[in-house]
Amino acid sequence: MNIGTYSLQAYMERIESFHGSLAPGLLIGGIMVDAALNRTSKDKLYDALCETYSCLPDAIQLLTPCTVGNGWLQVVDLGRFALTLYEKDSGKGIRVFLDAANMDAWPEIRAWYLKLKPKKAQNRQTLNDQILDAGVRMLGFQQVNVKPSFLIKRSKGAIGICRECGEAYPLNHGPVCRGCQDQSPYV
Amino acid sequence: MNIGTYSLQAYMERIESFHGSLAPGLLIGGIMVDAALNRTSKDKLYDALCETYSCLPDAIQLLTPCTVGNGWLQVVDLGRFALTLYEKDSGKGIRVFLDAANMDAWPEIRAWYLKLKPKKAQNRQTLNDQILDAGVRMLGFQQVNVKPSFLIKRSKGAIGICRECGEAYPLNHGPVCRGCQDQSPYV
Repeated sequence: MNIGTYSLQAYMERIESFHGSLAPGLLIGGIMVDAALNRTSKDKLYDALCETYSCLPDAIQLLTPCTVGNGWLQVVDLGRFALTLYEKDSGKGIRVFLDAANMDAWPEIRAWYLKLKPKKAQNRQTLNDQILDAGVRMLGFQQVNVKPSFLIKRSKGAIGICRECGEAYPLNHGPVCRGCQDQSPYV
Repeated sequence: MNIGTYSLQAYMERIESFHGSLAPGLLIGGIMVDAALNRTSKDKLYDALCETYSCLPDAIQLLTPCTVGNGWLQVVDLGRFALTLYEKDSGKGIRVFLDAANMDAWPEIRAWYLKLKPKKAQNRQTLNDQILDAGVRMLGFQQVNVKPSFLIKRSKGAIGICRECGEAYPLNHGPVCRGCQDQSPYV
């Protein structure tokens, strides 16, 4: 079994090094991203949209050219374990989700996904075995069209110096930077 | 010169492989993260906060254990080229920013940062040379305390099945999932 361009073993090592632990969500996420990549055309450019902050963004960042810092991955926090790869220009994409309606054969995946057991009661080995047994069969696929607002390249526009903090910021944020507009995360 | 645990050369290769290009923001970001790491205690656990989506999140993800998918990196989009590493428990942290007030000696960095020249007119080699010459001298440092709301471990709570789309979602999002509450990114 391969995950993207990695062997399963090499992907597990990449998970551990990047994400910090062999989280089941990264193993499932790897199978999801791989399945999405297998359903895209090699000669088009794709952006990624992820519907959760949990685990899945890291599978996307490890297996596609899309990262949070290069702007090709956007997270829209809908709380659904799903991702979409879509053509940059047209917005046409393939959405992959973990299909809760299709898990009778893999009760340990179901228990993990729906949080039916406390973490300590999960059997990680059984869970991993069921994930690898299920493969793409635990997934659902949809053709989607991403809204035009996601296709616009976000430009920061002109940069100025905030007259309150003295730091550079995008002038279209207002007369002072957002940090000086009560959005500071600091006390 | 080292960037985190990498030699400069190895870090540049990691940038190119992960971020997709040798962006100046990743080179500056690497020096910023390295400087922040050098000002933290080795025996404490740190989370990361990034004040921009541009480039800097990738330097944090490459050089610290904090990623978007493991929840240890949060991006607060203030549009400032700054990051904070803070203690998970107390919120005490070190903030590093690119100091616009301190760039007279490095005009190419200033031109890049404040977008004073179109991208095509930038001299990438001169810019890289000035970044490496400047090192931590182009940076500012602040002791900060992150607001308590950032210190709370975000739990998804109980998971249920959305009666509209049939997918799993955190029940505390409402009677149906956010995707079925007009927050869908799809047409």
